[in-house]
Amino acid sequence: MMDLALIKLGGSLITDKDQPLTARPEIIQQLAREVSAIAHQHPHLKLIIGNGAGSFGHQSAKKYNTINGISTDVDKFGFCLVHQDALDLNRLLAKIFLQAGLPVISLPPVTMAVTQEKKLLKFDYSAIENSLAAGLIPLVFGDVIFDKIIGGTILSTDRLLAELAKYFYTEEKFQVRLINVGNYPGVYDEDGQVISEITQANYPQIKGFIGESKSIDVTGGMLRKVEEFLAISNLGIDCWIIDGNIPGNLANAVLSNSALGTVIRA
Amino acid sequence: MMDLALIKLGGSLITDKDQPLTARPEIIQQLAREVSAIAHQHPHLKLIIGNGAGSFGHQSAKKYNTINGISTDVDKFGFCLVHQDALDLNRLLAKIFLQAGLPVISLPPVTMAVTQEKKLLKFDYSAIENSLAAGLIPLVFGDVIFDKIIGGTILSTDRLLAELAKYFYTEEKFQVRLINVGNYPGVYDEDGQVISEITQANYPQIKGFIGESKSIDVTGGMLRKVEEFLAISNLGIDCWIIDGNIPGNLANAVLSNSALGTVIRA
Repeated sequence: MMDLALIKLGGSLITDKDQPLTARPEIIQQLAREVSAIAHQHPHLKLIIGNGAGSFGHQSAKKYNTINGISTDVDKFGFCLVHQDALDLNRLLAKIFLQAGLPVISLPPVTMAVTQEKKLLKFDYSAIENSLAAGLIPLVFGDVIFDKIIGGTILSTDRLLAELAKYFYTEEKFQVRLINVGNYPGVYDEDGQVISEITQANYPQIKGFIGESKSIDVTGGMLRKVEEFLAISNLGIDCWIIDGNIPGNLANAVLSNSALGTVIRA
Repeated sequence: MMDLALIKLGGSLITDKDQPLTARPEIIQQLAREVSAIAHQHPHLKLIIGNGAGSFGHQSAKKYNTINGISTDVDKFGFCLVHQDALDLNRLLAKIFLQAGLPVISLPPVTMAVTQEKKLLKFDYSAIENSLAAGLIPLVFGDVIFDKIIGGTILSTDRLLAELAKYFYTEEKFQVRLINVGNYPGVYDEDGQVISEITQANYPQIKGFIGESKSIDVTGGMLRKVEEFLAISNLGIDCWIIDGNIPGNLANAVLSNSALGTVIRA
């Protein structure tokens, strides 16, 4: 059985979310070293990396309200700008990962997915499948996408990776894990302590205590993330929410299922 | 009937082909101003812009011999590098065109086309069609693509635009023109004079006199270009080969069919 790890590199981790268009190259370099260690220790593991937009895409997406459609010329120009901002950060990541010797290939979702009133209508997985089959690491990102009714919208990195997780699990019968690498230790409980495990059983009690991200995020914060991950975990896909600032944490999550953070499982 | 102009911005025009990774931003800005003038004067005209790789993609493509397939880890890493180099130049163009107010959207062919022993097996035109339908300007480029037999290869900008010209002409019934904007005045005859018109009728006599580009170009030079354009012109698509260094030449070719250069028509 093919083993696939989907790694989300959070926008709040790899950029300074409060400073427009500002990346955190040292953190990205550290993450590239960890992915490199993972690839060396587990050469048959398939990897897909998705990066959040952070301060590269969210500001322009908010300014042009791209998530809610494009109809005017200004909306359409905004759609192009958001795509370019998102590509800019993705390219920065690609460069650093290539410098670390990793065969990453930047693949923009705008060419793959189409929605209808924000609901996914079509997803062409072939570029990602071809990349994995060739031994490459697809590097995807939250992006603008075309919408059959409202013209265009945003596909968040979380939703994108959730769709990929479901597809490769159910259609390709891969063993799949999803690791969300963020700028926070995990999901907090009411006392500010990290909840080590969230399941369908304990979720109703903790739902009310989950805090929201303070920085701009057009695509929803922690509560939405947890609920999307709960839905996936129900299929049999473990989802981790871990702190990417702790060296080795990402490698531990992938290689030994023992990271500091929150795991969401059925 | 929809009117479509496909504009190829030659790698030798927009980069210094002899200096690795060196763009010519002033020329790109001038071209952006001309496209802007075209868009204002002819708002219903659909535009697709494709850029050559010049000194951004050809050196790495030659080094890794990507056109002839990917099998080793080095080949695969090279494939990723070539893609990144090509994206880098495309992104530079996108930025300058966005600054000129043009709604350009960068769309990498690696996600659209697949070959089989270098022959096109599949081309998903939907991202380009959706962009045109939304009033955006697709900005494509010669790129790496996956190949079902040899793993991967290169799809040149010339071939890409030729495929797009054929598709929109035959399938979508658009009126189509193809304008190749280069760093040379046109196609030379035996005396070094620009041939104003090449047709199926006069081609056999001039074939032997067509010169080749001196800079590195992994995807073929002038002779191949003329032959690809002759094949397209036979369908009813006029193809121009013009000098992009002459201000107004691109705008004249698109708006009044009166540029300085060579036109290839049936």
